[in-house]
Amino acid sequence: MNSEQIFNQIKLKQTFLCIGLDTEMAKLPEHLRNEKSPLFEFNRQIIDTTHDLVIAYKPNVAFYECLGTSGWQQLELTINHIRDHYPEILIIADAKRGDIGNTSKKYAETFFHHLRCDAVTVAPYMGSDSVLPFLVYPDKWAILLALTSNHGADDFQFLGTGRHERLFETVLRKSALWGNSDNMMYVVGATRASMLVKVREIIPDHFLLIPGVGAQSGDLADVAEYGLNNQCGLIVNSSRAILYADSTERFAQVAREKALETQQQMKDILSKRFRSSEV
Amino acid sequence: MNSEQIFNQIKLKQTFLCIGLDTEMAKLPEHLRNEKSPLFEFNRQIIDTTHDLVIAYKPNVAFYECLGTSGWQQLELTINHIRDHYPEILIIADAKRGDIGNTSKKYAETFFHHLRCDAVTVAPYMGSDSVLPFLVYPDKWAILLALTSNHGADDFQFLGTGRHERLFETVLRKSALWGNSDNMMYVVGATRASMLVKVREIIPDHFLLIPGVGAQSGDLADVAEYGLNNQCGLIVNSSRAILYADSTERFAQVAREKALETQQQMKDILSKRFRSSEV
Repeated sequence: MNSEQIFNQIKLKQTFLCIGLDTEMAKLPEHLRNEKSPLFEFNRQIIDTTHDLVIAYKPNVAFYECLGTSGWQQLELTINHIRDHYPEILIIADAKRGDIGNTSKKYAETFFHHLRCDAVTVAPYMGSDSVLPFLVYPDKWAILLALTSNHGADDFQFLGTGRHERLFETVLRKSALWGNSDNMMYVVGATRASMLVKVREIIPDHFLLIPGVGAQSGDLADVAEYGLNNQCGLIVNSSRAILYADSTERFAQVAREKALETQQQMKDILSKRFRSSEV
Repeated sequence: MNSEQIFNQIKLKQTFLCIGLDTEMAKLPEHLRNEKSPLFEFNRQIIDTTHDLVIAYKPNVAFYECLGTSGWQQLELTINHIRDHYPEILIIADAKRGDIGNTSKKYAETFFHHLRCDAVTVAPYMGSDSVLPFLVYPDKWAILLALTSNHGADDFQFLGTGRHERLFETVLRKSALWGNSDNMMYVVGATRASMLVKVREIIPDHFLLIPGVGAQSGDLADVAEYGLNNQCGLIVNSSRAILYADSTERFAQVAREKALETQQQMKDILSKRFRSSEV
């Protein structure tokens, strides 16, 4: 999927919402815990009730890995369910991988070939050769960590790196030369919406994956004000606020209601930003 | 395992070698490729012929993940084989993980609880809360990327971060406050042995995991000269140069010969550095 196809989906569905599948045994509704594949069963119901409100799902790989082969199988089942039933939806493996070239190549194989994902989140510390192996797959994406929403982000990402720049800005500026706006996106934390001005100065055209709206209380209006570009350019993620809004047998229906609230806000934002002929 | 126990093993076995299990289907000897669990069968023979020459094995998780559940199972089999037969050997999951707190907690569960590893490599970009969840497990280790041996390391790790410091030095200085020399180690690439002087100024006491000796042509003598501390403080990794030294049915025996060459060099280094009463 290229950026134009993503923008077309955004216009068609009037949403730039991504639901993060941070699916956790301990938070599942009671009645699902004895299922054979409880994480998948939960995800399947969430997906089937929300697919028309989102442009992407983002399974958080750690939550599956920690269950070993059973978790890995449920991740595969989840991805295959999306791929088979909703092929227009972007699947982002939130994996934060990154290693030397021949190892990153294996990670790219894992997520793009074996697991049929469209995108994978990648850490920048090891530099170009840790990212380039993800960029050679046509219609696939590397989503590079730039500015994250956790408090530890202050430890290194804001360090001055000379030339009136901070580390996250240097990461954006240098890495933008490795690929283009059809194979790279960036993670930019929503808790720092005003920083989006700086980000957009450096990378006006790239899609941004914005975590931290919802449970991490970012402000969607701010994000849109500073982050939108002429292809929308935003994919805003919400995980726990949607997944765990209800813990009864109605969980999927309540998740839909939560997702719908966000989608309606996004619809308003899109209709203001893009003329009706475009939207 | 704490640092004293690691040093005791180093003295006992006269080695600070780690073999990296970057085990790859396409590089396996022909006769193993039709085995039910070919990666594990290869690893098992490597481990059984080299265990007395090493203090650590380092499976590279990417090489297993890319085979899906089958790869994951073979990683588990490999770790269990080491754990059950050679409990004194450190198992390092080379996974380069790192995410916000609740996700890093899941990764720590994966590698320390589910997979019974002793240590996991971790990326620093997201800061303290991406590393702290790995430090709460007694006798387990987070091995933080500081200075890597790939050419992309130049993109960010050498950026000046003010106060006469470069990024990798700031990473060392700040992160050393998060834990101590019994729960944190650092990855420092051997292709930059002279940099070890700088590294040792900042973290004199921590163990360093040194990749890049062997196929990546680092120089063991240099590494020892600049990197040794009074508990040895070095774990030097070699992967391909040992694993793939021979591609016939004799592969494990030839791997042993290669490992033995390195162990003999290490024995010389250790005997020069530590008086016989210590060694």
